Amino acid sequence: MVLEDDVLKKISPTPERRKAIQGSVNSLLARTKEEADKEGLGLRVSLVGSVAKDTFLREPDIDIFILFPETVSRDRLEAVGLAIGKRILRVHEERYAEHPYVHGEWDGLEVDLVPCYQISDTALLRSAVDRTPFHTKYVQSHLREEQKGEVRLLKQFAKGIGVYGAEAKVQGFSGYLLELLVMKYGNFREVLEASAAWTRGTALSLEGEGTKKFDEPFIFYDPVDNKRNVASALSPNCLALFIFASQAYLKGPSELFFFPRQRKPLELDVIRSMLDERGSGLLLVRMERPALIDDNLYPQVRRSLDGICALLSSHDFRVIDGAYHVAEDLSFVLELEELVLSRGRRHSGPPAWIENASSFLERWGKKGLSRPFLEGGHWMVVAPRDHPSADDLIKVKLYTAALGSDIRKHMAAEVLMGAEVLTEENRPLLSALLDKRMSWEV
Amino acid sequence: MVLEDDVLKKISPTPERRKAIQGSVNSLLARTKEEADKEGLGLRVSLVGSVAKDTFLREPDIDIFILFPETVSRDRLEAVGLAIGKRILRVHEERYAEHPYVHGEWDGLEVDLVPCYQISDTALLRSAVDRTPFHTKYVQSHLREEQKGEVRLLKQFAKGIGVYGAEAKVQGFSGYLLELLVMKYGNFREVLEASAAWTRGTALSLEGEGTKKFDEPFIFYDPVDNKRNVASALSPNCLALFIFASQAYLKGPSELFFFPRQRKPLELDVIRSMLDERGSGLLLVRMERPALIDDNLYPQVRRSLDGICALLSSHDFRVIDGAYHVAEDLSFVLELEELVLSRGRRHSGPPAWIENASSFLERWGKKGLSRPFLEGGHWMVVAPRDHPSADDLIKVKLYTAALGSDIRKHMAAEVLMGAEVLTEENRPLLSALLDKRMSWEV
Repeated sequence: MVLEDDVLKKISPTPERRKAIQGSVNSLLARTKEEADKEGLGLRVSLVGSVAKDTFLREPDIDIFILFPETVSRDRLEAVGLAIGKRILRVHEERYAEHPYVHGEWDGLEVDLVPCYQISDTALLRSAVDRTPFHTKYVQSHLREEQKGEVRLLKQFAKGIGVYGAEAKVQGFSGYLLELLVMKYGNFREVLEASAAWTRGTALSLEGEGTKKFDEPFIFYDPVDNKRNVASALSPNCLALFIFASQAYLKGPSELFFFPRQRKPLELDVIRSMLDERGSGLLLVRMERPALIDDNLYPQVRRSLDGICALLSSHDFRVIDGAYHVAEDLSFVLELEELVLSRGRRHSGPPAWIENASSFLERWGKKGLSRPFLEGGHWMVVAPRDHPSADDLIKVKLYTAALGSDIRKHMAAEVLMGAEVLTEENRPLLSALLDKRMSWEV
Repeated sequence: MVLEDDVLKKISPTPERRKAIQGSVNSLLARTKEEADKEGLGLRVSLVGSVAKDTFLREPDIDIFILFPETVSRDRLEAVGLAIGKRILRVHEERYAEHPYVHGEWDGLEVDLVPCYQISDTALLRSAVDRTPFHTKYVQSHLREEQKGEVRLLKQFAKGIGVYGAEAKVQGFSGYLLELLVMKYGNFREVLEASAAWTRGTALSLEGEGTKKFDEPFIFYDPVDNKRNVASALSPNCLALFIFASQAYLKGPSELFFFPRQRKPLELDVIRSMLDERGSGLLLVRMERPALIDDNLYPQVRRSLDGICALLSSHDFRVIDGAYHVAEDLSFVLELEELVLSRGRRHSGPPAWIENASSFLERWGKKGLSRPFLEGGHWMVVAPRDHPSADDLIKVKLYTAALGSDIRKHMAAEVLMGAEVLTEENRPLLSALLDKRMSWEV
């Protein structure tokens, strides 16, 4: 197909680029080996990841693993691993997956230098990263030459529709998962076609299913360790989006699936007329952004959005939709059916023949907006809401919401409501809420 | 107790009045016997009810039963029974309980002339009214002389708090049930005290409980027929009100329990300020009153009120309270948290991996106030409400509500909302909704 050929041309490294990368990788491997040897621990050095597998896109990350013998303690491995990385990469930062590694630059390429244990079998693994060299070897030995382009297409497709990457920010498909899918179904198009039959709970495998059952949206048994689900990070929403986008692409292929246009935030006029048509109102909660890496931050942000929605719902506000935006601070925006509720609400009490009915009468006889009255044998009252206004509720009760633990620490929040929310500054946040166009739609 | 002595003096017939009633009853019995004898069917005539039991209040109904041998057919009994009644009572009307009887006037007293079968045992009864002579005999032989005043007090108490009468309009305590309660507990005060321990499902008896189980709020096994619950017509609410009023009376006795002040309907200003404080709104539905006797009308009216509430709730309106008023027409009034909802509402669709997701997309892609979007793997959309305004909903959809069957026939309704409802004419209806003072409260 011409379209896919065109895309492939755009995303595959040119021979020159490939050569340049190989040169940089070789010099980096040599340098790493040299530094590793200095430790006298019998360390090995190995290129893993998409460059090793030749499935990388134009600007790959270089993943180099420093393999430690199992006799080295975990503390030592971390200390030595970091020390080596820092000696090699001039500009660098420590990062933490399951354990620390060094991220930096080499010849203008992004590099991860990761210490791990050299094990003979995945059954013996001591940390999650120990599996990576096995993944690399598996793909190197099972992915056919002509499938490498198919992987590249699939990666770019996933990237274009916003589901590429297993990190918490995306909760999408890892590169390895996409490689397995191509091996499973043969090529890019076959993967897309196959996805029409996927459902929540679909379980796939290459080397036979494992005995372990996963209660995750989508399961791909790891061919190098069938007790593991390669798709464990995939959210139901990314799964759904992939399935939907695939069918949409097959019906009407377009480069926009691979290279979506950059969206401009919606104009305030557009936002205003959308809200007018719906008769709904907006509530904005802005909080301090805690100093966390994305993998820790995004789960907390999502939990906080859910917590704010739950707080509003439990106080009778009807939430239509919600969105968050991570910038220098954290913003949450909620679309509500009404921003201000009636002060009076129906409140049911105990049946009149119950002992403690008198405490209900005493309480509501004073506080009620009506006298307590009997209905179907039960006491009822028109009770006053403490917080009929959504912004007031959030200002006073946010601390009771189920927020992310680090977000909770910075409780001072700015709360805006209604027309106050419609500012230039908030357009990106409001677009995250209101612009429901798919990435490939014009 | 002086208070109760005073009340008893007011409600008991004076010796003169008692004598006058006895005279009227004797002449009516003689006249009825005379007319009955003309039929040559061996009919007997019997005084039953509160006059026969000497538990009547100042203005009693006279209940005279014409007892037919069991050999007479049901049709014949009805025809002959009505004919006799019409010959005796100048001003009269036919009425229907389980079967027809004649209601009219004699010497200025209200009279019911009721044909029934003369049976030897309640096990052989052919219609519900056949039991009445047995009830009369039971009370005559078991209620002690000094308890008659206690019954009168209890009847007046029940009347004062609005729970006297088993008819559908009231759903309260029948005279017979109150007599049984006095026999059970001894006197007026003991009944009130005992009620503190009553609960939903309390079962009482004088001659031992029957084997039949009743799923009714309150059970008193009929001493003349223990397969019957004397309290079968009692609603949970009348039960609750009796229990509550009893305890309130015992704590602070007052003539107001027996003789409540007539309430004036609330002033419109008062109504307006109550609603302002609550921030709620009113919806009025006025319908034609079908030509039914009260026993058939009231159940339908209550069912209709429930049906209107259910219709509103199922369209997201939050109903705080509702009331009806029966006059020349039927009026229903609902207090709602909001009279107009947002046009947009959240609408959940199928998961994206379900076959029929496409029909959701097709439908809402056109009709939606947003594009369909994915959330947690499910399709969602901001859908437009067809009837965001409560009055519009009722105008268009009232025919779908679970109304009383005869009320449903006259569907043309007047529907008013908000300030439109606050008229002089509607004050009684609005007071039925908003004036929650107990009858004995000032």
